Parts: sequence; structure tokens; C-alpha cells
Amino acid sequence: MSSRRKRGAAGANDGGALAFKKKLKSDDEILAKVAKLSEAEKKKPKESVTLQDLNLPNVSKEVVDLGAPQVISEIEKTMLSVAASILNGHGFGYTIPTRTSANQLYVPQLDRIVLKDKSSFRQYGNMSTVRKTAITTRILQLIHQLCNKGIHVTKRDLFYTDVKLFQEQGQSDTILDDVSCMLGCTRSSLNVVGSEKGVVVGRLIFVEDGDVIDCTKMGVGGKAIPPNIDKVTGFQSDAKFILLVEKDAAFMRLAEDRFYNRFPCVIITAKGQPDVATRLFLKKMKSELKIPVLGLVDSDPYGLKILSVYMSGSKNMSYDSSNLTTPDIKWLGVRPSDLDRFKIPEQCRLPMTDADMKTGKEMLEEDFIKKDPRWHAELELMVKKKEKAEIQALSSFGFQYLTEVYLPMKLQEGDWI
Amino acid sequence: MSSRRKRGAAGANDGGALAFKKKLKSDDEILAKVAKLSEAEKKKPKESVTLQDLNLPNVSKEVVDLGAPQVISEIEKTMLSVAASILNGHGFGYTIPTRTSANQLYVPQLDRIVLKDKSSFRQYGNMSTVRKTAITTRILQLIHQLCNKGIHVTKRDLFYTDVKLFQEQGQSDTILDDVSCMLGCTRSSLNVVGSEKGVVVGRLIFVEDGDVIDCTKMGVGGKAIPPNIDKVTGFQSDAKFILLVEKDAAFMRLAEDRFYNRFPCVIITAKGQPDVATRLFLKKMKSELKIPVLGLVDSDPYGLKILSVYMSGSKNMSYDSSNLTTPDIKWLGVRPSDLDRFKIPEQCRLPMTDADMKTGKEMLEEDFIKKDPRWHAELELMVKKKEKAEIQALSSFGFQYLTEVYLPMKLQEGDWI
Repeated sequence: MSSRRKRGAAGANDGGALAFKKKLKSDDEILAKVAKLSEAEKKKPKESVTLQDLNLPNVSKEVVDLGAPQVISEIEKTMLSVAASILNGHGFGYTIPTRTSANQLYVPQLDRIVLKDKSSFRQYGNMSTVRKTAITTRILQLIHQLCNKGIHVTKRDLFYTDVKLFQEQGQSDTILDDVSCMLGCTRSSLNVVGSEKGVVVGRLIFVEDGDVIDCTKMGVGGKAIPPNIDKVTGFQSDAKFILLVEKDAAFMRLAEDRFYNRFPCVIITAKGQPDVATRLFLKKMKSELKIPVLGLVDSDPYGLKILSVYMSGSKNMSYDSSNLTTPDIKWLGVRPSDLDRFKIPEQCRLPMTDADMKTGKEMLEEDFIKKDPRWHAELELMVKKKEKAEIQALSSFGFQYLTEVYLPMKLQEGDWI
Repeated sequence: MSSRRKRGAAGANDGGALAFKKKLKSDDEILAKVAKLSEAEKKKPKESVTLQDLNLPNVSKEVVDLGAPQVISEIEKTMLSVAASILNGHGFGYTIPTRTSANQLYVPQLDRIVLKDKSSFRQYGNMSTVRKTAITTRILQLIHQLCNKGIHVTKRDLFYTDVKLFQEQGQSDTILDDVSCMLGCTRSSLNVVGSEKGVVVGRLIFVEDGDVIDCTKMGVGGKAIPPNIDKVTGFQSDAKFILLVEKDAAFMRLAEDRFYNRFPCVIITAKGQPDVATRLFLKKMKSELKIPVLGLVDSDPYGLKILSVYMSGSKNMSYDSSNLTTPDIKWLGVRPSDLDRFKIPEQCRLPMTDADMKTGKEMLEEDFIKKDPRWHAELELMVKKKEKAEIQALSSFGFQYLTEVYLPMKLQEGDWI
């Protein structure tokens, strides 16, 4: 706090922006703070708290990543139990875990949402569930086929294989999630993937479907993150941290300036709202490399929302949360307090709209904000000042201010929360 | 036509889909038709008709790609002529080419839109143009700086460098286009780029900012196309054609099945509406490799619109059209006549909405459709039947029908128009 005041005073005459530049130390000294964070990360126990350790009432299990042979075996087991149910006189049906919010639980120790153990019996011999039962059976058959062939398709492809039965994509999508919960595996284990949006660049080497990908040799455009995470293996890296960027404009600046060569890191973005593939990739990369993730997002409620999706998951995928979420992301910037500290000009700040204010106020009550008083204080400041700013607002001090001053300064001071 | 009828009859009992599979020849034979098309492509004269050759009245010049030193020199020349104008008593101002549709011309021989030679004098000493003149000067200064530093930024970055002057991004964007026309160079020569969306995979090697990128070794996710095309050089390929795909779901199917290893090709997609970076990349790749481009889009007006943007450009970028457009794309599929021919089930076809019908009817009048009677006939069929279908509708015959039957059959029969 005292250093912040000092800085503010020092920069009063020259706009603050240049004052920071003068205070930058050598790159090695700048890296020292991050190196400490990385070391702490590597020393963390291999698996911290698991759902089993907590032994929560009414919470049974989480879905896990399964390989294709295991998924096939789970489907076959399911069909055998259906046959048994028929022979026992209970009829043709499936026991499906309930995915409504009443059956969801936020677990603070894990910092994610999990499903409780309520379920329902979906039976064929009932007018209200006969269609859903038929669709469930068809989806199980299609997944069995996909896993047998070892190929991946999108939800849309799946829908088109039997439009007559599914009628609309919403129906096959919903039941796909049911099937994933029922089999106890992640949606990506079912070989049904979303579209890819993310890109990655920097000090990272991995193997993708047999090809060795060196992300330091991916030019300025980076490597597209594949939709099928199970084809990604063998992460290797000498990076000290992962820089998670909200937008592609900032990604482009960092890639073109080869920021990762000056400060060894991996730079990743989903270009806005994170897709499943990018979230899986980040999660896998972080847990294998054991290095910290620093988040660079716009200073607005939407930027925080994006961090929250990476960290806690989205509600409708809650059953899949442990595989999709990266709980301990540090909020590097652009934070509401940065606006004054870095003296972002008034005209580069935008007034928050009514919708922004509503989202901001709602988020103040959310668990992932409340659990860290520093996060809560930043969001309170945003809502109080009714101001937001994009990462690009830093361009007002020069196109390369982001890579040459702002980020090095942040790293030097260990200014993440 | 006769072969189409025969096929329809042959497939009457088994849904048609399997009938095609039986008719597939060996891969070498399938490739024969494409090989002919490729040879024809390579024999084309190096530069076909240019704007100069046509010697059109009221059409002076097109913008061209310029290197950074040339852009710098053009800016300096412009400022010298401004100084001369002041000394001559004509005041401070710029001569700006008019970009309105009244000053645009579709040139059938080139199959693209070009600007005619109307221009206006934008002067500082006039209440209605003083702001625009100031913004133009500031943009020229910023571009000069970008070209000097050799870095690339987005339009949004540019806007944020002087929000006080630009007020809103629309204003700096518009004048950026004016500056591009005035200097006679493409927007990408100004080092202002759009965001990247496209990905590429297949039999292609190129150099990106010094890194050698081998697109056969890009796993299933492919290589992200960089926003700054001037960093891309040294295209090498043994591909027989470029497969331009509208959507990422189809791209994923082709990449995962490594379609390019069976039929040597390069596969590229912009994931929907094409962005400038993907269009520049396609144009550059095609003109250096001299191989045909086959388009695979949805059978709906939007799919055709996407082809038209690749081929003829969009109206508001018309001045930049020669650098952005790839005129001779072959329409491979999914064409309206394919729906019956491949017996796409009724439930996988979608009724066209009112907006679809309106767009479809308008497109029937457009030059790029009218110039080829076969294209016109296909669109007429679509509008007449009021039916559309997505590429994914082919999944109704199996997830890999696209790569194993549909595309090989299309290639075997040379069924593109």
C-alpha cells in the first residue's frame, strides 16, 4: 500500500506511465518474485484435498476422465444392468443423476461446484419419459461406436446422426450430459467435443496426436488448441508461469513481442468466453507443469466472469467441474485499482452500463469473490467508481506499454492477488 | 446429369449413401480429376488480366501491398504535399479517394469490386472537416510509428492511443480506411490487423516470423493463421488442391481423419464469416502454390455469402479487393442439388426462413452468381425448394461419411462448378 502511494506521487507530473518504466529492474530481478511463486507451486502436495477426503454427506463421486476402453466397458455394464432390471420386473430404464441446481453444492475446500447424489429412474414404460429413455439408449449406442472407432465429433454431428429421434439439438445435448453423469466420466471422455477457439504460444512443448509441437516455434499466430484433449500428452516446459489472457489483441501483442523469450512463460487465450477445450488444456498444462497461472483480463465484470469460469466452472457443467477448473488463478490485472495506480487517462475508462453494474453487484455475493477479501475489495472499488477499462486502454501510453512496462512492473512487484 | 439420375435410381433402395461407397475407385484414380485441375491452374499465365490491361475509364489504380519503408516514404511524401499546399495558399488538407458505393465498380473481367477515381479535398480550414483532418493527421503519425517499429496492432489498440481525439472507434476505423486508400496501399501494409480466427492443416510448409511451420505436423488442432500476413513467407507444398471449409466441425473431422494424407491437400477454415487474415492467407497461398481452391460450405444462402466474401470481397473493403480476394474458387459442395443426389434425409434438411429466402432471392441478382449459369441454377433450386442443409447433415450416414465417401466421390467425379 505504501509503495502504491509513493508511486502515485512520483508519477503525478509525468502521467505516471513513464515513472514506472524508470523503476524497472533487470529482467532477472523482475523474475525473482515469480520464481518464488513457481517454487511454492512445485512444492504443493501432489493431490491436495480430494472429494473423498472431505467425506461430505450426500455427495458420492465426481466424474473422471476415462479412456475409450473404460467408457465402452461402462456402457456395456449399464446395458447389462438394464437387462437385469427388465428380468427383475422393474422394467427398462436408467438411473440418472439429477443435475438441477438443487442437487449442486459449492465446496469451498475444493473451490468448485459438485453434484450431490440425488438421482431419478428414467423408464421406458412411462409416457412422460419414454422419449428420453429412447434418446438415452441411442446416445449410448453412438458413444459406444465413437469410442470403438477412436474418433471425435461435435454435439452438432451427434444431433445429425438421428434428427428424427432427437428432433432438436437441445434434446441430444441435454441427454449427452445425463449420459456423462450416469457413466461417471467427463464429456470429453465420450469423444464429443466442442469447437476450438483457443491458441497457445511460448515456452511449451507437447505431443498432439503423435506430432511434437514446439510452441516457441509457432510464429506470431500461435498453435490452435485442439478440441480433443485426450490426444495431448507429454507437456515439457521451462516456463516460470502461465499467462492467461482474455483477448486475442493482447495475445497478439505478447506473441509478436515474443514476451515469453524475455520472461519464460506460456501464453494462452480462448479469445473471450472460455471454451471447454481451452479450459481442459489449461487444467492439464497447469497440473503437469506445476507452475502458477496469472490472469490478464479487462477490468470489468465480464473479465472477472471469465476468470470465474476458468476457476470454478459454469453451473451447467458442474458435474464435470474437477476436470475443467483451475482453481488457483492469480488475478494479475487489469485490476480496478490499476486504473488510478497506472494513471489510465479518464477518456480511456468507460462508464459501467446498468447491466455491468447489476452483474458487478451480483458477483460481490458470489463465493469465488467472497473467499478472498482482496478480490472482494477490487470488485467493490469497480462498482463504487462505476468505471471499467479494457486491457487495450494501456495502449494510451504506447503500443508496447503492456509488454515493456505494465507486465514487467507487475511481475517485479509480485503484484497479483 | 444422366449420371446423377442413374445414381439416384441405384440408391433408391439403400438410401443412396452406401451405393456411393461402392462406386469409389482407388485413391489414385480419384485424384486424377483433381490433378488435371491442378495442372490447368499451374499453366495459367502468371498474371492474368490486370486493372491496367483493361484501361477502364474513371478507374485509376488499386491499392497494393507495400513494405514498411515504402509506407513510411508515402506518408512523408503526403506530408510534403500538404506543406506545399499550405505554401501555395490552398491550405492544410488531404486529397482522399471517395469510398461510397457510387464510386465503386464491379469489374467482371477481374471478378471483383474496384474504386473509381472520385476524390474529395479534406481541409482543416472548414468547420465540417476540421476534426476529420486532425484525425487523419494523427492516424498518419501513428502508422508512421508502427512501420518504423515494425510492430502490428489491432484497430482497437489504435483507437485507444488517442481516445480524446477519436472519441469512438468507428471514427478511427473509417479514417484508417481513408488513409489506406490515400497512400495507395492495403490496410495490412499499415500494420493494423484484425483478430485471427482461421486455422490451417495439411500438406503445407511455410515460414512465419522466422519459424518453419510444417502443417502436416500440427496434430488435430492445426496451426492458427497469424494476423500479420507480411510475416508469412516461403510457401512449399505437394498438395493438389486447397480445401476451403466453412466450419470448424468439418475442419475437425478432416484434420482428425488426416484427410490430407490420403488426398494431398491443404485444409483451411475461418470458422464462419471469413476474417481478413484468413482471406489474405488463402490469397497468398493460392497465388504462390498455383493450385485450385475447392469450397465446402453449408447449402444455404449464408454459405454462398461466405464463398462470395472470399471471391469478390465485401463492399466496405472494396478498395482493398485485389489483395483480399481469390476469384476462382470452385464450389464443391454442399450444393442444393447434392441434397437429393446424396439422399440427405428429409429431417436433416431445414426449411429456409423468411430472411434466408430474402437473401437467397437477392443473391440471384448478384454478379458473382449470375456470371456462372451453374451457380445460378443451384441457387435457383435452393430458393425453389426452400430447403437448406448444413455440412453436418452428412453425418446422418455415419460420422465419417464426409471424409470417406462424400468428398472422395466429389473428387472422383470432378463434381465442382
